[in-house]
Amino acid sequence: MRKEWVEKRKKDSVRTQMYYARQGIVTEEMEYVAKVEGLDPELIRKEVARGRMIIPANINHLHQKPMAIGIAAKCKINANIGSSALASDAAGEVEKVKVCQKYGADTIMDLSTGGDLDAIREEVIKHAEVPIGTVPIYQILHDCNNKIEDLTIDKMLEVIERQAQQGVSYFTIHAGFLLRFMPLVAKRKMGIVSRGGSLMAAWMMHYHKENPFYTAFDDILDICRKYDVSLSLGDSLRPGCLADASDDAQLEELKVLGELTLKAWDKDVQVMIEGPGHVPMNQIERNIKIERDYCHEAPFYVLGPLVTDIAAGYDHLASAIGAAMAGWYGASMLCYVTPKEHLGLPNAEDVREGIVAYKIAAHAADIARGRKGARDVDDAMSDARYKFDWNKQFELALDPDRAREYHDETLPQDVFKEAEFCSMCGPKFCSYKITQDILEKHGA
Amino acid sequence: MRKEWVEKRKKDSVRTQMYYARQGIVTEEMEYVAKVEGLDPELIRKEVARGRMIIPANINHLHQKPMAIGIAAKCKINANIGSSALASDAAGEVEKVKVCQKYGADTIMDLSTGGDLDAIREEVIKHAEVPIGTVPIYQILHDCNNKIEDLTIDKMLEVIERQAQQGVSYFTIHAGFLLRFMPLVAKRKMGIVSRGGSLMAAWMMHYHKENPFYTAFDDILDICRKYDVSLSLGDSLRPGCLADASDDAQLEELKVLGELTLKAWDKDVQVMIEGPGHVPMNQIERNIKIERDYCHEAPFYVLGPLVTDIAAGYDHLASAIGAAMAGWYGASMLCYVTPKEHLGLPNAEDVREGIVAYKIAAHAADIARGRKGARDVDDAMSDARYKFDWNKQFELALDPDRAREYHDETLPQDVFKEAEFCSMCGPKFCSYKITQDILEKHGA
Repeated sequence: MRKEWVEKRKKDSVRTQMYYARQGIVTEEMEYVAKVEGLDPELIRKEVARGRMIIPANINHLHQKPMAIGIAAKCKINANIGSSALASDAAGEVEKVKVCQKYGADTIMDLSTGGDLDAIREEVIKHAEVPIGTVPIYQILHDCNNKIEDLTIDKMLEVIERQAQQGVSYFTIHAGFLLRFMPLVAKRKMGIVSRGGSLMAAWMMHYHKENPFYTAFDDILDICRKYDVSLSLGDSLRPGCLADASDDAQLEELKVLGELTLKAWDKDVQVMIEGPGHVPMNQIERNIKIERDYCHEAPFYVLGPLVTDIAAGYDHLASAIGAAMAGWYGASMLCYVTPKEHLGLPNAEDVREGIVAYKIAAHAADIARGRKGARDVDDAMSDARYKFDWNKQFELALDPDRAREYHDETLPQDVFKEAEFCSMCGPKFCSYKITQDILEKHGA
Repeated sequence: MRKEWVEKRKKDSVRTQMYYARQGIVTEEMEYVAKVEGLDPELIRKEVARGRMIIPANINHLHQKPMAIGIAAKCKINANIGSSALASDAAGEVEKVKVCQKYGADTIMDLSTGGDLDAIREEVIKHAEVPIGTVPIYQILHDCNNKIEDLTIDKMLEVIERQAQQGVSYFTIHAGFLLRFMPLVAKRKMGIVSRGGSLMAAWMMHYHKENPFYTAFDDILDICRKYDVSLSLGDSLRPGCLADASDDAQLEELKVLGELTLKAWDKDVQVMIEGPGHVPMNQIERNIKIERDYCHEAPFYVLGPLVTDIAAGYDHLASAIGAAMAGWYGASMLCYVTPKEHLGLPNAEDVREGIVAYKIAAHAADIARGRKGARDVDDAMSDARYKFDWNKQFELALDPDRAREYHDETLPQDVFKEAEFCSMCGPKFCSYKITQDILEKHGA
């Protein structure tokens, strides 16, 4: 859908959404987003210009539907997919893309580490109508035959440009983790739990030189500026357990991410900031406020956070609690966690569970923030319940298949789809029926 | 375990924990609770005397292990079980009791409505080491052959005493829903969604007389006082959807529950207050504060709340978000919700899912409140993760079977239980390994 839009901008020296926004231009992408969000196009433009909202939309991902991440927009969710050394076919990843889009992921990160990474990414982008994000260090490492010490800045930039050229709309870059933070890491219970972060640590320790993503940040920005790839500034030092939450390692890195944000904005590159992780409920609001402060209100993109460390097997749920609260307090996008977190690799069913958990969290956050119209679908559901319209209830549920399946376990016959009761109270003592009698006598 | 304790009190005119507490006596139950909670026995006594904590322990449930519900104690969870017209054998309910206790329910409510209710309850109590709660109106209705208009106060009191005599430790009584609230119900989107509440409505509408539980409240208190049955004052008018949350119907009933609390305390009867239901995140704290105010700090026992209405099939999760927050803000017990909520009757697997979801919520709440030692198990889990001790990780997880099962899906062989990596990053780029290298170089 973006073919013509992008085509006519061909001669512009810079083509990022932020650049246009700052020129006072409302792009077609902004118009589209305004429509989807039910907001004024001029508000979208202002938010993008201010850096408080991003529209991740690589100029080469032409069939992508524009979407916005930022506090003025609805809370978004990301789902991670990706091949591994064990399961590395493109078809499998395309299947996952379909599951993600079916259940409503707003963006998808392709975290592939096994197989032909370029070919897989090409297929993923081809089948995605949502923005695709990546963590380029995974491919850089892959191209170095898993020898992190072979990483050079040239190799790094080559891979980043290759991915940008392919149509990736945002990159997680671990540029904020500096050599001087090593002693802070050593104080932690869990150290580094970010894979990209630990790779950076390994490289820095090997050469005792500064983080190459930090050193070459300007060159990375030039690539992002060229293709309008947004940056998702990675939190290499996100806490891996409650004990490490909101500690010096995390917050010192966050300050650097704030500095990098300003650098990116100088080049009209869109930025969001990645956040934790594992955080007890009473520290979530504080984390959101600190990010807003240190990072100049760039959109906050959090991973959960998990509100306890002992929920292995149910971490989608333990993290959805933190995610819902984070969204309410002001996070703009929630990265899902699946039930397999800390235990193994998610399959398609885990992806579904993770996405629905996060749709619940993001929607609950929109309601709690009082976003216009956020509760309309809930009200429609309540009306359907009250009217015993079961098919409508299934349709309005975040996972219609699951709702229908559970209902039909007890009452499978079609006639019960209009029955004025359900299996819980049975026909004689349905609360809704009794309420309707009250209404008749006492009026509405 | 309580046989001797109860035996020696035989001649006391009143034998409720609240009575003893007010006499300055620390009972064996209080001692036991103090040990379990890691609190001073005198604090327990004071809290029980003040009505801010209850120890639901019927004098006839002698093998029950004492436990406490109140803000000074750890956050508790309740699981509901119960027969229906379709599945009404006692053995099935005993199985559910075992599942509840295995996964850590702190109390169990037997909400049976089908089969021989007395016989089922007897079996449930026999197999339960946790307090059993009931909703007597279900049996009253059953004994009236499902004709609610046949309910009389005598019949009501007879059933209540029968259940008390059997050893039920707390009763949900819908005494706060008064005739004058009918017009408030008529204003709602969803009316009444509490089954007990709708039965009361049906009776009141039929006779146009005041709620019989309210009228006979003093007689009910006498029974509770005799057997030390705690009251769980039911919220007949809990909101059934976000649109009805915190409305006049809910709050007017809550005020009456506050009045009834004082009446109960006058007779040394222990009380907790039931709460919603469906509440958007931004109203949860307010709900907790209002209850504290209206109900004189009697422990608050909430059902979820669900933070969105559109999560059918995942309502255990949508409600665990609200429950965790409620626990953090000060609710003392969380009533679980299963994935079948709004759709059908839960099976054993649903019970497991519901309980674990609520264990997560209650534990996260304890951590967020900063309870002494609450995070110790999380720290132990983090240590086990860092040491690659997989068996220890499974053991510390809230659902060890599930954690092991998910891990073994990818790496089933025994050797991987000590492997210094997992299936997520593989052996070469384990973040923990890299952190350990940093530690060697930079010290702890």
